[in-house]
Amino acid sequence: MFVSVQEVCGQISPVRKDLLDAAQDHLDNLTKPVGSLGRLEEFAARLSAIGGGAFPVETDPALHVLAAADHGVFAEGVAQNPQEVTHLMIVNILQGGAGISVLARQSGMDIVLLDAGHKGECPQDSRAKRINDLEVSGNLAREDAMSLELCEKLVLAGANAVAEGVQKGYKIFSVGEMGIANTTPATALYAEYFGLDPKEITGPGAGLSKDCIAHKAAVIAGALERHRKQHGKADAMQVLASLGGFEIAALCGVVLGAAALKKPVIIDGFISTSAYAAAYCINRTVRDYAFLSHASAEPGYQKVMDCLGEKPMLHFGMRLGEGTGASLALQILRSAKAVYNEMATFKDANIATDTYLQK
Amino acid sequence: MFVSVQEVCGQISPVRKDLLDAAQDHLDNLTKPVGSLGRLEEFAARLSAIGGGAFPVETDPALHVLAAADHGVFAEGVAQNPQEVTHLMIVNILQGGAGISVLARQSGMDIVLLDAGHKGECPQDSRAKRINDLEVSGNLAREDAMSLELCEKLVLAGANAVAEGVQKGYKIFSVGEMGIANTTPATALYAEYFGLDPKEITGPGAGLSKDCIAHKAAVIAGALERHRKQHGKADAMQVLASLGGFEIAALCGVVLGAAALKKPVIIDGFISTSAYAAAYCINRTVRDYAFLSHASAEPGYQKVMDCLGEKPMLHFGMRLGEGTGASLALQILRSAKAVYNEMATFKDANIATDTYLQK
Repeated sequence: MFVSVQEVCGQISPVRKDLLDAAQDHLDNLTKPVGSLGRLEEFAARLSAIGGGAFPVETDPALHVLAAADHGVFAEGVAQNPQEVTHLMIVNILQGGAGISVLARQSGMDIVLLDAGHKGECPQDSRAKRINDLEVSGNLAREDAMSLELCEKLVLAGANAVAEGVQKGYKIFSVGEMGIANTTPATALYAEYFGLDPKEITGPGAGLSKDCIAHKAAVIAGALERHRKQHGKADAMQVLASLGGFEIAALCGVVLGAAALKKPVIIDGFISTSAYAAAYCINRTVRDYAFLSHASAEPGYQKVMDCLGEKPMLHFGMRLGEGTGASLALQILRSAKAVYNEMATFKDANIATDTYLQK
Repeated sequence: MFVSVQEVCGQISPVRKDLLDAAQDHLDNLTKPVGSLGRLEEFAARLSAIGGGAFPVETDPALHVLAAADHGVFAEGVAQNPQEVTHLMIVNILQGGAGISVLARQSGMDIVLLDAGHKGECPQDSRAKRINDLEVSGNLAREDAMSLELCEKLVLAGANAVAEGVQKGYKIFSVGEMGIANTTPATALYAEYFGLDPKEITGPGAGLSKDCIAHKAAVIAGALERHRKQHGKADAMQVLASLGGFEIAALCGVVLGAAALKKPVIIDGFISTSAYAAAYCINRTVRDYAFLSHASAEPGYQKVMDCLGEKPMLHFGMRLGEGTGASLALQILRSAKAVYNEMATFKDANIATDTYLQK
């Protein structure tokens, strides 16, 4: 287990380019036109290189880390759903009825739920763990969402969820979240990390009206002003503490922990990607380990992708969160793995490589 | 089993709009913001409506129908790979080493291989069946690829592969192909069905150089001229016989058969989609039953989508064929099915619907 965020970050090293090249060489020798499996090949090569040039590549068992929390900024009227829905959905997730419950079952991923601090009891369930005694973050429009100390504690808890998962034999991780109002901190983080205008990237979340979106954008703009007055040009961890949320901090730790332990980590939608963005701004090398699963329907998402230089796998117009998109991406990665591990080479199939299927 | 193509087509009826609406009503009552699962909801609603409003929706077991054939137009120098690769790949597919072998295993789909006529023996394998004694189609640049009679025979064989599959309990079907040079007939069919210019939609197939692509486009333009002189403005089946290929005709039959028997059918890439286009031009109602799996990297593909008014699921730059993209789409459909069948309703989760998550 990690004892500090510094230890986590100190263990992160880039995926070796020579291993990526070797993996692509292997793919180029399989019975198909060179490059004809498109992004499946990109995914397979990265999985192999992340595993240190592993053959066979492993993607199972898979562990989904879902963090949930409540948000002080809810008080500003940035969400139309009652705050108690966070708790009700935590219960629903563990009882098996939520989108992620169903999709995790279907796709064969186990779930751990990090209760990062919400208004309610953490359900008695071996998969759920409370990692923060507070019930709600500070209202980021008026104060820091959390102290730097608490932020680091939550990041560390996220990283240790991965460490624990690795000890149990999990080979791949994914992140998802639940928390009423959490598109607001996610949007605030994007704005501060990438210099984006809140007016341009603030969206409806679970379904705000146009007027409410304008109000939400104004709240975020106010939060950024408050943050900049208080902290100036702050480092990425301080930005996360000031403008983030408990679950976002925990998931940032999951991303950092996966990179430190050289495991692939699948990123879900708009909010999970803000946790990835925080991790990326803390240590850019996390990108070598991350797979962005799907393009959120939230309007700011594409601008964030442009900033990150990433192309998400799926474009299904989804905006549920919880890890629902990550569950689909896991299945894609398993298919990429199968190609890498199991396809015949030209030699196996008695096909002369000088004539066939080379581009 | 069907006794004629006329019988197949006579059984095709549209998916009922009221069943689609009822399925969407069900989805809107699950514990998520309305519409927040994006295209997964579209897929789930269609699966339910295709099944006659079935609950639960079923997607398993799944049968992949892969048709293979050789092409007379190979003689025009439109492919850089030796023609014997068709046979070698048929063997490789059945031995389990090809892309589709691996991906079908990974995604849990059974394979039947329709040998629609190729230069070689059909391997002795319970999954493989020869449906045509000819070894190669006519060279469509100079003559009809096949007689109308043979074309209808192959279409019927494809439809009956579905009928047999339904008898064995299969709930969903997919189509894939193997045949050296078969992007040429596929492109010719698109050009004739949709009035597209061969120069604009002819691509590299398995890896032609730029000069060779220009030559291939000229061969296709010549074939279209030959066809129009010979047949004038012909019906869709005659176009398929004149400009298609054996495997394309068989797969057209699979699409028609699935629609007739009210089963979902997943369409693979560039060549499989030409079989879908033929089926669509024979009977537009097939679109109600079809799921287009992925955007082929072949440059003409997007233009064809514009003509068909379809949006494929995945954009991975794949161009292998065989059904490799369909195998990924099957997993997406299974996830859509799981959402539909297993998610809790607001009532299940004790969440008041008047306040929560309604858009």
